[in-house]
Amino acid sequence: MTQATLVERHAAMRDRLFEAGLLIPSGVDGVYGRSAEFEHVVDGLKRAVHVFAEVDGAENYEFPPVIPRATFERIGYLRNFPQLAGPVFSFQGGERDFQALLKTLDAEQSYSEHLSQTEVVLVPACCYPVYPMLTGTMATNHKVVQTSQYCFRHEPSVDPMRLLAFRQMENVSVGTPDHVHEWRSRWLERAPQLLCDLGLEVRSDVANDPFFGRAGRLMSASQRELQLKIELLVPVFGDEDPTACASINYHEDHFAELFGIHTPDGERAHSSCIGFGLERCTVALFAAHGTSISTWPALVRQRLWE
Amino acid sequence: MTQATLVERHAAMRDRLFEAGLLIPSGVDGVYGRSAEFEHVVDGLKRAVHVFAEVDGAENYEFPPVIPRATFERIGYLRNFPQLAGPVFSFQGGERDFQALLKTLDAEQSYSEHLSQTEVVLVPACCYPVYPMLTGTMATNHKVVQTSQYCFRHEPSVDPMRLLAFRQMENVSVGTPDHVHEWRSRWLERAPQLLCDLGLEVRSDVANDPFFGRAGRLMSASQRELQLKIELLVPVFGDEDPTACASINYHEDHFAELFGIHTPDGERAHSSCIGFGLERCTVALFAAHGTSISTWPALVRQRLWE
Repeated sequence: MTQATLVERHAAMRDRLFEAGLLIPSGVDGVYGRSAEFEHVVDGLKRAVHVFAEVDGAENYEFPPVIPRATFERIGYLRNFPQLAGPVFSFQGGERDFQALLKTLDAEQSYSEHLSQTEVVLVPACCYPVYPMLTGTMATNHKVVQTSQYCFRHEPSVDPMRLLAFRQMENVSVGTPDHVHEWRSRWLERAPQLLCDLGLEVRSDVANDPFFGRAGRLMSASQRELQLKIELLVPVFGDEDPTACASINYHEDHFAELFGIHTPDGERAHSSCIGFGLERCTVALFAAHGTSISTWPALVRQRLWE
Repeated sequence: MTQATLVERHAAMRDRLFEAGLLIPSGVDGVYGRSAEFEHVVDGLKRAVHVFAEVDGAENYEFPPVIPRATFERIGYLRNFPQLAGPVFSFQGGERDFQALLKTLDAEQSYSEHLSQTEVVLVPACCYPVYPMLTGTMATNHKVVQTSQYCFRHEPSVDPMRLLAFRQMENVSVGTPDHVHEWRSRWLERAPQLLCDLGLEVRSDVANDPFFGRAGRLMSASQRELQLKIELLVPVFGDEDPTACASINYHEDHFAELFGIHTPDGERAHSSCIGFGLERCTVALFAAHGTSISTWPALVRQRLWE
């Protein structure tokens, strides 16, 4: 008997979640509805993370799933991750252009040439709207912001842990290097402990973002060497192919430089963020404890909902 | 003294919400962060609507802010509202195309020609992902689905009640014409009563969607004549220019025909939906009761949070 390939294991898990009614297919891989039971787990995870945010005195903000194109461009996202980006287009013509569009639609031809780029782009990571909000000199040496929203990354896949649109729950730390390091050290203990308390097998490892192309390989190597990205890996599809369910990133003064954020002493701020992949954690929990919440271990249920 | 123009009144309200820290500017009109206090009101509104959904036995689903392009095209959205649409593009080339993209970025030229249309589009209305999920023959004569998510409409404006990305809380009724009519009648009483209980001046009126162009004027007239769309209007910017804070739409068998939904007796299902504009209702409440929640009338606070 040959072992199932990774893609087969992905498809099997996705189909199991479809059959249990937890995810609802839409016809496009990576775009699914979520049942009330699935959302109950997401809510529990958000609450569990929020407890730590409260300890840290985090401020909470809500952001929409689009950011200004100007922010997207300043971050240089297209230079690093063009394959994942989601610029939004629309029809911006007048009556005559509209008649031409209708003709194209009638002929069932591609209509993309009738669309033009708008001033917004889908958010690739939850923390991106936070930095422009902090432009200027901080009133205190350290600030923590918590936010959760849908992110978009264009990487179609049958893996139910790799969605086109998914939610992160992020905490972002901005301030003096000492404060940011101290906050990051705390999360490097808390985050694996939380996932472990939820009954997940988890290990931390140095990682890199999926920078595009040949030049990207250099960026990835440098990021790993500096240990700027730590992922919390859960072996949902086997030990060889673990999935990152959360990641802790240290940006040094990168975002402060881009958006002009200074600490009270006038130095460029440092920043770091921890992001939990809410759908990834939820799928990991269904994979570990079964598709029926009522049979989950009592301690896991307590941690999520009590 | 001349009266402020409508745009001036819009800008004044937006600036008041900025100054109170309830909305956070991003540099693009209609794209704002929301403070924890703003979100507290949104949560209260969702709970108040959810109470009715529970009475109706609604099933709850969560959907991402993108739908398959196939769904968007089947609905014919570009024929009716091309100016509001949000198709998502991405970079889908290889290494050589990437080098060309980098050259364009280095030259600070428009890079949109390097992008191509993906298989997803931003959701224009909360109920759109619901109908494809119901394709087939229904097990019962009536089903109610509740869902809430970010919708996108490309209509940049300084009006803080007209956002590019905003949340609706929708209840969707699908079933036999009798069941759908009965459900709709209930909401035609409940919805204005709820807004009235929240201390808002509200009146119901027949309305139409913003169909594009010359042909669109005919569609609008027909929609009004059949009284398919009823809006709940709140005069935040004066009696002459009230804002729709919710709308109740009757689709006859339109969506059931598009997506093949049948009642148990084999007839084409009818459908109707009620959508509350969560940011619109929230801004209306801040406009009516002031920007500090703690001073709101006790009855309003009770209705939202107790």
